Amino acid sequence: MKPIALTMGDPAGIGGELTLRAWIALRGRGPCFVALDDPGRLAALATHLRLEAPVRDVQQPDQATSVFPDALPVLPVRLANSPCPGTPDAANAPAVIGSIERATLLAARGKVAAVVTNPINKAALYHAGFSYPGHTEFLAALTGATGKQVMMLASPELRVVPVTVHASLRNSLAMLSTELILSTARTVAAALRADFGIARPRLAMAGLNPHAGEQGALGDEETTIIAPAIAALRAEGEGVSGPWPPDTMFTATARGRYDVAICMYHDQGLIPLKTLDMNHGVNVTLGLPIVRTSPDHGTAFDIAGTGRADPSSLIAALELAAEIAARRR
Amino acid sequence: MKPIALTMGDPAGIGGELTLRAWIALRGRGPCFVALDDPGRLAALATHLRLEAPVRDVQQPDQATSVFPDALPVLPVRLANSPCPGTPDAANAPAVIGSIERATLLAARGKVAAVVTNPINKAALYHAGFSYPGHTEFLAALTGATGKQVMMLASPELRVVPVTVHASLRNSLAMLSTELILSTARTVAAALRADFGIARPRLAMAGLNPHAGEQGALGDEETTIIAPAIAALRAEGEGVSGPWPPDTMFTATARGRYDVAICMYHDQGLIPLKTLDMNHGVNVTLGLPIVRTSPDHGTAFDIAGTGRADPSSLIAALELAAEIAARRR
Repeated sequence: MKPIALTMGDPAGIGGELTLRAWIALRGRGPCFVALDDPGRLAALATHLRLEAPVRDVQQPDQATSVFPDALPVLPVRLANSPCPGTPDAANAPAVIGSIERATLLAARGKVAAVVTNPINKAALYHAGFSYPGHTEFLAALTGATGKQVMMLASPELRVVPVTVHASLRNSLAMLSTELILSTARTVAAALRADFGIARPRLAMAGLNPHAGEQGALGDEETTIIAPAIAALRAEGEGVSGPWPPDTMFTATARGRYDVAICMYHDQGLIPLKTLDMNHGVNVTLGLPIVRTSPDHGTAFDIAGTGRADPSSLIAALELAAEIAARRR
Repeated sequence: MKPIALTMGDPAGIGGELTLRAWIALRGRGPCFVALDDPGRLAALATHLRLEAPVRDVQQPDQATSVFPDALPVLPVRLANSPCPGTPDAANAPAVIGSIERATLLAARGKVAAVVTNPINKAALYHAGFSYPGHTEFLAALTGATGKQVMMLASPELRVVPVTVHASLRNSLAMLSTELILSTARTVAAALRADFGIARPRLAMAGLNPHAGEQGALGDEETTIIAPAIAALRAEGEGVSGPWPPDTMFTATARGRYDVAICMYHDQGLIPLKTLDMNHGVNVTLGLPIVRTSPDHGTAFDIAGTGRADPSSLIAALELAAEIAARRR
């Protein structure tokens, strides 16, 4: 198996220390990964945090495999300025973007097994001319992806896919449509088969309103928007249940009845996922030609450089990327 | 301590079997309660479900205390028809309403310590001329309550109060206002002091939007509606934090920092509460002159009469009612 490419993320955030800690956790058992980062800043960070994590430059991803047991392999991406924890620096934005670009192109050419991205700060990148809403759209453009890309959050307890994602709750309601639910669910069902090895995925469709609308007394989107999507998916042969009352569909018993919950808005899926397991959630982008995962947290500027950042989610993201890549291969 | 009055609820639902099972669980340790129900139908139900729960008529609540260790004390409320599990009967609606009325008036006169209500089916009551949106408004009218009544859901892990409750998500957004948050939070803070013995309650105010609006990028209600409510409450001396990103405020660590989460809509509070603990949630009505709790589930017509209903939530409701009544006394 080829190594995984791990991007730098915002160098003022917790990405660097997570990369070092993930290497310490995984050096013995894998999966092997190569950081696309500034080797000097990683070495300085290891010293500062007293982490025993030697850093070694490599020129090609395939050199990472032999290096990995002894040192963190790094494909150099040089920063303009030495990063200051907690304070993003627009001068470093080209390197942040370059790390993502290079990792993605290596994956597209089959030189790495997958891309795992450390968290970025979009505001800092926008100042440098970055014009995508986030990682997902950038990776879709770089890989010429067609179809719909979908964000799935996966933890050991639960998989959720929000149909509407980064929009206000008011705008999410306005954006919700049968077509959007359908295109999302189709990508999810295909990915569960191809990437997660689930031959007949069971999709649980959430309602939008309290008690799933209570026969129209508390809202009608279940009838007008969600039920037609369920009917169409069933006609295509998918196993779909719902619309379920949102407050009772995430109990342990209910979770045992489905492989993924299709949620109508961001917090409907993210609240139960993070309430059940704050540290092991992984963000998986479905519908890309390459394999891409990321931790489900942000840059955490408030604790960057203190050594308090928890690498569990990044480690889970690397492990899940390796699993998916193995299945695709 | 006086007994608690337990209402019948819809006799076609699971209320009767929950009442019998709660008595079996509590007869030895209390709290003592008296059912306002039809003694004949309870006895028949006990026989049908093979529950060892003798039923005994009492004429006054104070007779319940001596009866309780040996039999379920019942203040008779006669049904017009023998109930058929799963099928509500409009002819029985006057008895359902009468049970609530009598329990409430006994509590208002100090003859019982509290009222615990079994679940009703509102549609069945509307046909019989009942004109209140639910239990809470009916009890407020019967007791001449002033101020704002508020629904709190309490489990061993979490207390939540939704600011908007039984409305579609779209209407909940339209109803949300600084004034509504303020009146809700004031009732909650007063009740935590008086009824829960928390001298300086810590209120955590949820945001409405993903990431609590991300500085306006994902919605502005945090700034325009929620922040002014927080400022006003702080000026009144209340301990209020937030607005918090909804998806991370219900983790175990976050929950340790507050006594109650004030939530902007029904599922924002109910999803984490039921995900964490499906069976022990209790609905508490704050802001009434009497003590009133109820289980946090419905009539469950689909399993009524099968003996599968779980009495945990009703038992927790009886225990919490006793605790609150003891504090008020």
